[in-house]
Amino acid sequence: MSGSLVVVGTGPGKAELMTPATEAVLARATDLVGYGPYLDRVRLRADQCRHASDNRVELERARLALSLAAAGRQVVVVSGGDPGVFAMAAAVFEAVETGDPAWRGLDIRVEPGVTAMLAAAAEVGAPLGGDFCAISLSDNLKAWSTVERRLKAAAEADFVIALYNPASEARPTQLGKALELLGTIKAPETPVLFVRAAGTPEAHVVLSTLGTADPTRADMRTLVIVGASTTRQVGRWVYTPRGERGGRS
Amino acid sequence: MSGSLVVVGTGPGKAELMTPATEAVLARATDLVGYGPYLDRVRLRADQCRHASDNRVELERARLALSLAAAGRQVVVVSGGDPGVFAMAAAVFEAVETGDPAWRGLDIRVEPGVTAMLAAAAEVGAPLGGDFCAISLSDNLKAWSTVERRLKAAAEADFVIALYNPASEARPTQLGKALELLGTIKAPETPVLFVRAAGTPEAHVVLSTLGTADPTRADMRTLVIVGASTTRQVGRWVYTPRGERGGRS
Repeated sequence: MSGSLVVVGTGPGKAELMTPATEAVLARATDLVGYGPYLDRVRLRADQCRHASDNRVELERARLALSLAAAGRQVVVVSGGDPGVFAMAAAVFEAVETGDPAWRGLDIRVEPGVTAMLAAAAEVGAPLGGDFCAISLSDNLKAWSTVERRLKAAAEADFVIALYNPASEARPTQLGKALELLGTIKAPETPVLFVRAAGTPEAHVVLSTLGTADPTRADMRTLVIVGASTTRQVGRWVYTPRGERGGRS
Repeated sequence: MSGSLVVVGTGPGKAELMTPATEAVLARATDLVGYGPYLDRVRLRADQCRHASDNRVELERARLALSLAAAGRQVVVVSGGDPGVFAMAAAVFEAVETGDPAWRGLDIRVEPGVTAMLAAAAEVGAPLGGDFCAISLSDNLKAWSTVERRLKAAAEADFVIALYNPASEARPTQLGKALELLGTIKAPETPVLFVRAAGTPEAHVVLSTLGTADPTRADMRTLVIVGASTTRQVGRWVYTPRGERGGRS
């Protein structure tokens, strides 16, 4: 029997946000490869092999998964959220491009999932209701000047901005620098949402503004959403109207 | 018993991509409100009321849903994809903002789902692997000059760009104009993906480039993804590496 590799995402955390398609892929796997905390979200059977690894070794993990698939195993690479958004799918194709040419003949596919910004938005209303950008603040693999260029362009064109990887122990200062830059372009009263553990029972939201936001509120489990000029509060919710005149038309 | 309103998304189409959380919300509903084709994706019980409406009457539909909830019904508003991305959640909060003040006291929440660009990306590999923007090409509610300003900013800052609502019978020319504008900034060999009916059994992908893309390929069921400078093909797949050096580092 020939091997296969499927890259999946568990969604933001709770089991009810993992798709049945992903559940079915997991049930057919012989080998599950992923970062430990994501694998912990999956109920493994006794006949399934668990290959847990540390964070930040994505290419190594992808190569292990490809080697197992090449050896005939039914491999599933487990990400959080959606595997195509700042997660393992790109790492798998990087490993294919730079690895054993035979890997290009493998049966590889990706299953979509609920990415963090969608779960974060749903916790507070509909802040992504207009045009939006998703930017990772991690500069492990790209220059900080690239992040700045994208933040500036997104602010000037009045996008809603979802910030992934806003902070970690190794990168405590990026979010502060990013909010400061955005504050030179967007108005100080622009809503800023810190959504921690979205899509889990521990979800916690802090609504702030660009003028007053405290960047130290964010950690690795936080997704930060910075509004457009039209983003606003109504009742307990924050939303961005679909058009420029929005609800006021 | 007091009423409630939950806004959900069915995902891109096939039942296996609707989350169990959304399935559970649908099961508890007394009234389902939505655009007919999205309601058709839901199996209704005999004791559930179906309120189907035409496309492009989002605010009216939102007001009906809010009125039903205010009258004590358990209402679910059904979108496709994720309800917070170019869908019904923003329309519901617009209706709350401009409607009966009592609606602000209602129990309203949003359930996240798999939005079209994630399903489209998964069909081809990982084209959203880096920073990306989502832009709706519909100018029903915003000026075309706003769309152009955002396309230009996104291209200049080298984002991957997902284009929602690329074309409809009433708007046949927008995608051509958008690709032409992007072609003045991005290289002609930039990958352009036309993904039709992503996340359904009829999914169909056309890989093209900015220099050769035929905008008439897109219809209302198509999601178009325009790559960043690093987006490339490997084997049968298209992906954007996580960093600037990507798989070549």
